[in-house]
Amino acid sequence: MKNNYDIAIIGGSAAGITAAVTARKHYPNKNILLIREEDEVLVPCGIPYIFGTLKNIKENVISDEILLTNKIDFINQKIANIDKNKKIIVLENSNVVFDKLILATGSSPIIPPIPGIDKKNIFPIYKRVTYLNALLDKINQAKDIVIIGGGFIGVEFAEECKKNRNVNITLIELQQDCLIGSFDKDFCETAAQLLIKQGIVLKLNTNIKACLGNEKVDVIELTNGEKIKADVVILGVGVFPNVELAKLLQLEIGDLGGIKVNSAMKTSCEDIFACGDCVESELFLINKPGKVNLASIATMQARIAGANLYKIKRTYKGVVGIVATVISNYVFASAGFTEREALQKNFKIIVGEAEAPNRHPGTMPNMQKIKVKLVFNHDNQTLIGGQIFGGYDSAELVNVIGTLILNKLTANDIVTSQFGTHPAVTASPIMYQIVNAAENASIKM
Amino acid sequence: MKNNYDIAIIGGSAAGITAAVTARKHYPNKNILLIREEDEVLVPCGIPYIFGTLKNIKENVISDEILLTNKIDFINQKIANIDKNKKIIVLENSNVVFDKLILATGSSPIIPPIPGIDKKNIFPIYKRVTYLNALLDKINQAKDIVIIGGGFIGVEFAEECKKNRNVNITLIELQQDCLIGSFDKDFCETAAQLLIKQGIVLKLNTNIKACLGNEKVDVIELTNGEKIKADVVILGVGVFPNVELAKLLQLEIGDLGGIKVNSAMKTSCEDIFACGDCVESELFLINKPGKVNLASIATMQARIAGANLYKIKRTYKGVVGIVATVISNYVFASAGFTEREALQKNFKIIVGEAEAPNRHPGTMPNMQKIKVKLVFNHDNQTLIGGQIFGGYDSAELVNVIGTLILNKLTANDIVTSQFGTHPAVTASPIMYQIVNAAENASIKM
Repeated sequence: MKNNYDIAIIGGSAAGITAAVTARKHYPNKNILLIREEDEVLVPCGIPYIFGTLKNIKENVISDEILLTNKIDFINQKIANIDKNKKIIVLENSNVVFDKLILATGSSPIIPPIPGIDKKNIFPIYKRVTYLNALLDKINQAKDIVIIGGGFIGVEFAEECKKNRNVNITLIELQQDCLIGSFDKDFCETAAQLLIKQGIVLKLNTNIKACLGNEKVDVIELTNGEKIKADVVILGVGVFPNVELAKLLQLEIGDLGGIKVNSAMKTSCEDIFACGDCVESELFLINKPGKVNLASIATMQARIAGANLYKIKRTYKGVVGIVATVISNYVFASAGFTEREALQKNFKIIVGEAEAPNRHPGTMPNMQKIKVKLVFNHDNQTLIGGQIFGGYDSAELVNVIGTLILNKLTANDIVTSQFGTHPAVTASPIMYQIVNAAENASIKM
Repeated sequence: MKNNYDIAIIGGSAAGITAAVTARKHYPNKNILLIREEDEVLVPCGIPYIFGTLKNIKENVISDEILLTNKIDFINQKIANIDKNKKIIVLENSNVVFDKLILATGSSPIIPPIPGIDKKNIFPIYKRVTYLNALLDKINQAKDIVIIGGGFIGVEFAEECKKNRNVNITLIELQQDCLIGSFDKDFCETAAQLLIKQGIVLKLNTNIKACLGNEKVDVIELTNGEKIKADVVILGVGVFPNVELAKLLQLEIGDLGGIKVNSAMKTSCEDIFACGDCVESELFLINKPGKVNLASIATMQARIAGANLYKIKRTYKGVVGIVATVISNYVFASAGFTEREALQKNFKIIVGEAEAPNRHPGTMPNMQKIKVKLVFNHDNQTLIGGQIFGGYDSAELVNVIGTLILNKLTANDIVTSQFGTHPAVTASPIMYQIVNAAENASIKM
């Protein structure tokens, strides 16, 4: 490590790595330093899979190879201070002078204000190897696991913890359904049935009164009086942006608590950019700030920040949540707004649905059905949301839907667009789900 | 069947069915008749799979259920004549009066002018059940099968005929590579290696002098003098549009031999529309006629023709070939122009490539690598082509690429677009192949 860098990046996860690699590609002659707190960086979305599918935590580590081959120096240290005028980062034992800075400081789990939430064996999901290894030990010894929060992390942890373990798992969700942020009722209920079939107990519409026990949690007490045994509790109720450094730098902070950035991913301070979970994202569909924390959005923003450091080459159009998960070998995927969310946001909407086998004829091997639901804005007929349930191809099919949303296509545009098909790997061209869902919506317009 | 219909559709395959269903959705009160020659309609792209993967030809039949549930009358008869002024279709034993007509008469296999090509046991691929059942019998008895033509049909037949059969298969291709219409050299060579590994003999850059034998073909003689034993010969060298009826109707025919249509899919005659393989398609990327015969294009055109019968609701933007096939459980997929084709068409181009596992971390189950190559127009930086090799998700990934092409996105647009990811079902957001291929192209721009 030198004492002087053209580009310093703070944060070593998806956003930081991608910002660094992008900066390297666009500015091959610059010196780049990445500063991170952890010795080893985990694939963030892979964390639930450490607890079931993967053999051990090492399998979920992002290799530093990508930094080495891109000639990016890196150091694993906490930052003591930053001086934005002198452009100096103060580390534990050294100082680093920079010209351009990218903040990719990520997010931290929200700790809900439940009495007893600070007891031992209650685990918010921090992305740290030693911490998660300790959690893995606890889970391997547990008989009763309680998961608080039925979003993606909660649902994925529930399924993974159940895999090959003789353990009771209870998933507690405040709202009426799991995955309600990304799916409408019927999709959520399908997901719930698949979880219940695995023996996972779902407590929906459920408030927690307290975490009981001495030092260590023993019982989760619900507001209805019910008590649930708990050796280990996993918290998955959302994240908040890490903005301590941004505040130290006196950067402007948005209404939702993230770092404010312009369309070039530049902060309120010249020469300082930000990307990933630490920034305040603007929703593409309504041009208002919204909370969407995804590694895929973080890397997109990082590709803008990294490219723009010395010359504004790219602009940011706002985010559309495009997500997928797998439950019992079925994919659930969603892009943009659900019907519920669109109505809450006062859109007049038109919905179209279609279901078809993902092979044609349906007698081809490994056939699974895929169901697609599309949500259109009635006023201009553009696509504003889509949900998919079914075969593994759904995970890329939702990226077709995301691309259609981001390009503001109408139902008619989609029906007259083109989608390649093949007997062994897709739906029939007569039955292609996205097209038929758009057709079913178009005739209501 | 009545004697009087609002809408008559001629042709019962993908285009005809889709035109009829679309007309039903858009004009619920009209009477619709579909006229076809065959008693049973085959999934056109599924035909090669009758010979290996599927148990029998019945598994590849499109059920008439879709016509029945959409209240579409149908009749299986040849058409003797049509009078476009009186709007009368003359069938074998009856006449039908129509108001609007859609021609979806499809295409027929080209028979190359090779001496002896009309001998017995030489099979062009007609889409008829009894004919293909006869071919299946011959293949089941054959020791030496020769396939002429290394396009999708030829390659798929080669692999399917080889499955579970002790048979010699020789695939003869006039050009330097199989699949050369949709893939660049490196992809074609990967495909060739996978075919060779299965024991299929490839004869590339190879001309045929004659088909030898008495009544029945015995030997294929090459221009280099080599002789290849052949019990059965399969012809897959392309198709030509079926325009006999169109000529009878005195419709305008295009330079490439297909029925001329406007952007509403209307022919030169008022009240007569056409769609599918029988029409002259315009290439989206160059606004010139081109030969792209795909069921996915036929159905897209049918959705335009069917919706526009009584009111022009949809317009046609031209076609982009979006295709996929599977060889040895690897998907090969392509959209738009290959590098070779773009250069032949005098584009100045920039190419970007990327390869990554389709899971993240790569230690997740069922990981396959996916390689993406993107071809950009140097002049305006828009995407004009993409090729994919790898896991099954490639088949929907190519539809993301197709959508990007059809929306004229640049490399920068793609890099700043969003694609959802998940450990169990896609590449990492750091490594998402389409984005990284676009990034690799963008830095050359």
